[in-house]
Amino acid sequence: MKINIPLTVPNQARSNYLHNFKRATKGTGRLMLFAGDQKIEHLNNDFCGAGIATDDNHPEHLFRIASRSQIGVFAAQMGLIANHAHNYRNVNYLIKLNSKTDLLPTASKDPLSTALNTIEQVVAFKKNSRLSIVGVGYTLYPGSAFEDQMLAEAGRLIYDAHQHGLLAVLWIYLRGQAIKKPKDAQLLAGAAGIAASLGADFVKINYPDSPTKDKLQAIINAAGNTGVIFSGGESTEVKKFLKTLQDQIKAGARGNATGRNIHQKNLSEAINMANAISSLVTADSDLEQAHRIALGKEPIKTNFFSF
Amino acid sequence: MKINIPLTVPNQARSNYLHNFKRATKGTGRLMLFAGDQKIEHLNNDFCGAGIATDDNHPEHLFRIASRSQIGVFAAQMGLIANHAHNYRNVNYLIKLNSKTDLLPTASKDPLSTALNTIEQVVAFKKNSRLSIVGVGYTLYPGSAFEDQMLAEAGRLIYDAHQHGLLAVLWIYLRGQAIKKPKDAQLLAGAAGIAASLGADFVKINYPDSPTKDKLQAIINAAGNTGVIFSGGESTEVKKFLKTLQDQIKAGARGNATGRNIHQKNLSEAINMANAISSLVTADSDLEQAHRIALGKEPIKTNFFSF
Amino acid sequence: MKINIPLTVPNQARSNYLHNFKRATKGTGRLMLFAGDQKIEHLNNDFCGAGIATDDNHPEHLFRIASRSQIGVFAAQMGLIANHAHNYRNVNYLIKLNSKTDLLPTASKDPLSTALNTIEQVVAFKKNSRLSIVGVGYTLYPGSAFEDQMLAEAGRLIYDAHQHGLLAVLWIYLRGQAIKKPKDAQLLAGAAGIAASLGADFVKINYPDSPTKDKLQAIINAAGNTGVIFSGGESTEVKKFLKTLQDQIKAGARGNATGRNIHQKNLSEAINMANAISSLVTADSDLEQAHRIALGKEPIKTNFFSF
Amino acid sequence: MKINIPLTVPNQARSNYLHNFKRATKGTGRLMLFAGDQKIEHLNNDFCGAGIATDDNHPEHLFRIASRSQIGVFAAQMGLIANHAHNYRNVNYLIKLNSKTDLLPTASKDPLSTALNTIEQVVAFKKNSRLSIVGVGYTLYPGSAFEDQMLAEAGRLIYDAHQHGLLAVLWIYLRGQAIKKPKDAQLLAGAAGIAASLGADFVKINYPDSPTKDKLQAIINAAGNTGVIFSGGESTEVKKFLKTLQDQIKAGARGNATGRNIHQKNLSEAINMANAISSLVTADSDLEQAHRIALGKEPIKTNFFSF
Amino acid sequence: MKINIPLTVPNQARSNYLHNFKRATKGTGRLMLFAGDQKIEHLNNDFCGAGIATDDNHPEHLFRIASRSQIGVFAAQMGLIANHAHNYRNVNYLIKLNSKTDLLPTASKDPLSTALNTIEQVVAFKKNSRLSIVGVGYTLYPGSAFEDQMLAEAGRLIYDAHQHGLLAVLWIYLRGQAIKKPKDAQLLAGAAGIAASLGADFVKINYPDSPTKDKLQAIINAAGNTGVIFSGGESTEVKKFLKTLQDQIKAGARGNATGRNIHQKNLSEAINMANAISSLVTADSDLEQAHRIALGKEPIKTNFFSF
Repeated sequence: MKINIPLTVPNQARSNYLHNFKRATKGTGRLMLFAGDQKIEHLNNDFCGAGIATDDNHPEHLFRIASRSQIGVFAAQMGLIANHAHNYRNVNYLIKLNSKTDLLPTASKDPLSTALNTIEQVVAFKKNSRLSIVGVGYTLYPGSAFEDQMLAEAGRLIYDAHQHGLLAVLWIYLRGQAIKKPKDAQLLAGAAGIAASLGADFVKINYPDSPTKDKLQAIINAAGNTGVIFSGGESTEVKKFLKTLQDQIKAGARGNATGRNIHQKNLSEAINMANAISSLVTADSDLEQAHRIALGKEPIKTNFFSF
Repeated sequence: MKINIPLTVPNQARSNYLHNFKRATKGTGRLMLFAGDQKIEHLNNDFCGAGIATDDNHPEHLFRIASRSQIGVFAAQMGLIANHAHNYRNVNYLIKLNSKTDLLPTASKDPLSTALNTIEQVVAFKKNSRLSIVGVGYTLYPGSAFEDQMLAEAGRLIYDAHQHGLLAVLWIYLRGQAIKKPKDAQLLAGAAGIAASLGADFVKINYPDSPTKDKLQAIINAAGNTGVIFSGGESTEVKKFLKTLQDQIKAGARGNATGRNIHQKNLSEAINMANAISSLVTADSDLEQAHRIALGKEPIKTNFFSF
Repeated sequence: MKINIPLTVPNQARSNYLHNFKRATKGTGRLMLFAGDQKIEHLNNDFCGAGIATDDNHPEHLFRIASRSQIGVFAAQMGLIANHAHNYRNVNYLIKLNSKTDLLPTASKDPLSTALNTIEQVVAFKKNSRLSIVGVGYTLYPGSAFEDQMLAEAGRLIYDAHQHGLLAVLWIYLRGQAIKKPKDAQLLAGAAGIAASLGADFVKINYPDSPTKDKLQAIINAAGNTGVIFSGGESTEVKKFLKTLQDQIKAGARGNATGRNIHQKNLSEAINMANAISSLVTADSDLEQAHRIALGKEPIKTNFFSF
Repeated sequence: MKINIPLTVPNQARSNYLHNFKRATKGTGRLMLFAGDQKIEHLNNDFCGAGIATDDNHPEHLFRIASRSQIGVFAAQMGLIANHAHNYRNVNYLIKLNSKTDLLPTASKDPLSTALNTIEQVVAFKKNSRLSIVGVGYTLYPGSAFEDQMLAEAGRLIYDAHQHGLLAVLWIYLRGQAIKKPKDAQLLAGAAGIAASLGADFVKINYPDSPTKDKLQAIINAAGNTGVIFSGGESTEVKKFLKTLQDQIKAGARGNATGRNIHQKNLSEAINMANAISSLVTADSDLEQAHRIALGKEPIKTNFFSF
Repeated sequence: MKINIPLTVPNQARSNYLHNFKRATKGTGRLMLFAGDQKIEHLNNDFCGAGIATDDNHPEHLFRIASRSQIGVFAAQMGLIANHAHNYRNVNYLIKLNSKTDLLPTASKDPLSTALNTIEQVVAFKKNSRLSIVGVGYTLYPGSAFEDQMLAEAGRLIYDAHQHGLLAVLWIYLRGQAIKKPKDAQLLAGAAGIAASLGADFVKINYPDSPTKDKLQAIINAAGNTGVIFSGGESTEVKKFLKTLQDQIKAGARGNATGRNIHQKNLSEAINMANAISSLVTADSDLEQAHRIALGKEPIKTNFFSF
């Protein structure tokens, strides 16, 4: 894959950017993103409850999965990483910069989420911790009455991230009292175009309702050189989930961003699931192979690190 | 044309300003602006749908047109340029600094759009990328309940842009719950006067309803030394569009800002249309000549660049 | 007149302050301020319409008047000056720092106007342009729900202006949904007291309803060492206008701030009017003399500059 | 009195702090504060009207009183001082940092008052002017919907003031739509506790309704090492006013903050009144003595300065 | 206990962090926090009234208790400490950075509390005062309409605190018009997860309704390496209070944060109570032992300092 280094990356940061891009995508240009940033957005509901392995309640579960499976990056807030990554140094980290809770309904106030840290803090943290921090993430809510604050913050953060060769990943959700059809394909293509306009390296958006090849293509085209990642859809049934992901990748999606469908399983199942996803995203497995990996029926070359 | 360098441009930046002004206007003082900044404002609706060439869905279409036709400047957000301009180095770029979506109706909240980047970032980007960045753009909504934020941001940005010899182009739209007649000629002359008061080099405003020579003259006078650019009107029929533009130029308009009427066509038609507009704005073609260029019936000396 | 240099002016800026004060007031302590800053506040309505000379539509009209008549200072936004002052270097300029449009009715939102430029930008602009910039102006709306923002901005700007020996002129209008009688003399005295508390050099306020000598005296006293300037009243009839101004000066007003009553006339009449006003404010003419100057019946020693 | 230098005062500023504290309190630890900062809060109503000496309309009246009587500090905004203090160099000044008008009723918007100047500006002003500036003041409205802004600004300003050895005086008024009993003793003790928590040197609060020794003691205790100053109560009858003040001092109040009851009198009466108050606060006069001073029947050693 | 130094602590601050952590937790990893920061939040109601020892009205009471008993840290605003800590230098202080009053009901406005000081001010204060300042505290209200401001401020403050080796303690209360069950265990686990995501060292949250071992375990797990501290419950009966604390510690809570249940007693009882709590938290006493200490029936090795 030819890597298209954004022109906002200065000369002295180009090798950093390339290094980060290759590590994050295993040289494929596709990003297997394991999402561990939902403890603010969804509080404890994603991590504890019916059908969720008890392992998942403690955040170290996330780091164990990230460390023992073949993911591209593990996304979480800087604080979570700072307090738990000591023994998980083989992981590529992506600092999720902003987060909000879901406690306040949109009907009460349109969503607004502000960066918890500056890029300067991320860069110093990377240097101090010597962790493999490859990029940053930011969630944007177009259509919110506060979109101007988030658009401006995103624009500046992406520029600043590129200054240091860090990847910039956007999560874009159309949300607010004015948004009636957040999964409409044309709107999602609009979200993809916003990501392109802001110069993101990757953008995660919802998977459209009634997806067709044309709809997916339109969305992916709208994003230009920004890689599109879709959410995993509603299904939690493993094979169906993997099939959807395969469809997305075939349509040109540049990766996945998966949280619950991995970490709500117990450790070994979660590792298998992460590897199955990775095999589809970055190793061109076919669906059957991926499914066997998910079920633990097929070995996969995995890095094991002690902790 | 005598170039009136703003007194906010310091001595050491005067040659930069002159260089940028001449490149942007091909030495004519008139600006042929190709607008590629609508992916945030109009999401995907300008780029995909009935009557729009499929080429237009991918942002690279915009860069191809810009690179192969005789435009003055191509306006887009920094991020879009950073991720796509690698092979389009012959283009003069204008960084559109702010943008908002049209998702939130004015009846819910008056418009507010904040700069996505600072001038310092633009200047560093120019240096790092070695792209021909000749200026910046900013959209202002007088009459909005948030006009004070945008007026203040515009005032400071224009000053900062001039410090570095960059052109400053305003888009001014009268919009907000208090605005009933956004295309009233006297109000548009007011918008022109705001641009003059802020020291913009060019201002793009709506074309008045029922335009007359007197109305256009009044608007252009109100702008003082700021060059006025009108929107292209409703029509998308080529000859009628070109006729309107010719009327505007004859009345003293200092250029055009055209997006959809160019990029919604397929590549060769779009190039022809861009050249036809350029021929009216910066080459003093007559209407018939311009029309023939638009139809591809008359060759035009064009710079071709490989990509 | 003994000049009372504010103690916020540091030693090294005292000679600048004195120079600016003397130039602005022609050594009289009284300020003849020609207001050219209404293109944002009143859009084009002050400059084009029934009863307004067609000269007035183009902003250069303002500079021509300023340059050819005996005014103290010409007040306008930095951008307007930056784009038009090239050939009007004999004028003393006062940078109007903030402005808002009148599009949004007070019933919708209380007034808020934010500085378009910083004092640092003004100082650099003065140095770069080598224009005679003698001070800055700021409009304040006590009683607005946003008065705290404007009071704080004014306080800091005045301090910063004095640091560089620049004069600071406030326009104070009592305005907002809570204000029922904006021309009540006691309220206007309050406005004068606010200007005194903020350390302004001059303050322009409305002329009270039913003005009496006592009312005017109370207002002027309340301003302490800040010079009070009244608006010109409703009348546009020349002699009546001059009579009102004479009354104000006799009562102790320290100048005038006149816009429309000058610039809505054609160039020669406007120059005559400006000179007539100047003669009352800074040359102690009597009313008849001033009136003859306004009518062009009496020559006045005027500086002519080519442009 | 043992002076308890706050630990926020750095070593190099301790002698400044001591010097300021001693000057302000005449070495007694009790502060006789003459308030001249009401021209913004009450506009002209405190300075001109029935029962007010005509002297009071011009702000120089305040400086004359301050200069010719035995006050501790004279509190006013920096601008007022900068424009009037030239000939009143014997006065100890306290810069009142924030002010709002009373034009907007609390029912329309809860009170919000923002600093007009930074501490850096105060410190530079002190140095430039060589005036005896001993401290700063700030008004805080707990219970206002905007209390968070004012609490944060106060916290930082007090710290910054102490960095330079300046005294920090808070005016705390419980005000806002949620406040029903702003003179309830327990609430006032709460205000005193806020001042203690913010590290103020002195706090001025309302005098409680139906004051008792216990109530006053509880308030004074709640303030810890912050000195409490009560407002003067409703009465304007001289002896009653002095009696109330004596009661306050006996209960442990650490001074007074008096404006109208001094400056609304003519110059000589105002000086007498200021001296009478001083005699109670910083010279341990008895009530009869103080009353005789107020009436001009007993001489008091006063510093006279020419102006 | 193995101390898990956050990776946001740079190398040069690791020994400071360790020192602070050990001092605060007496080497146990459990924090006995004596809360003296309620004078803003609860005004005087916690310090004066029926059933409260009269000692408690003066803030020095808090310092006496802190100094003479075996607490881990004493938490209060910087101002209170700056004005009262002179003779209480043996205490470990934790600077409570933000506070709001409870005057404004949540039904009027969701809670918002902003930092009164910056970390830079805390660090300079520590250096100037040479007090043993071991960390900072911040209160966060998830579910408030203003949570974005507080989340962002908390994220940055924690990072900054760690830069200097200071501990960061969060108080997290689910509060706002959208919050119906602030003591629901799953929501509290969510609050714990927020603290983990922000990288706090400790988090104080409410004690859940109908606490069970499983509920407490889920909350503690959700916090990951962030130590959880529960509020003391409603009871003020000594033995019951100590029993609840013991239950919490046994379930894995990493300390206590106690204010009223200590300082509302007279000095000797308060010291006994503080020691009793300390004995449970940091000395592994059994309940009977702790109760005897609370009653003053069993001596405890205590540091006495003169003051």
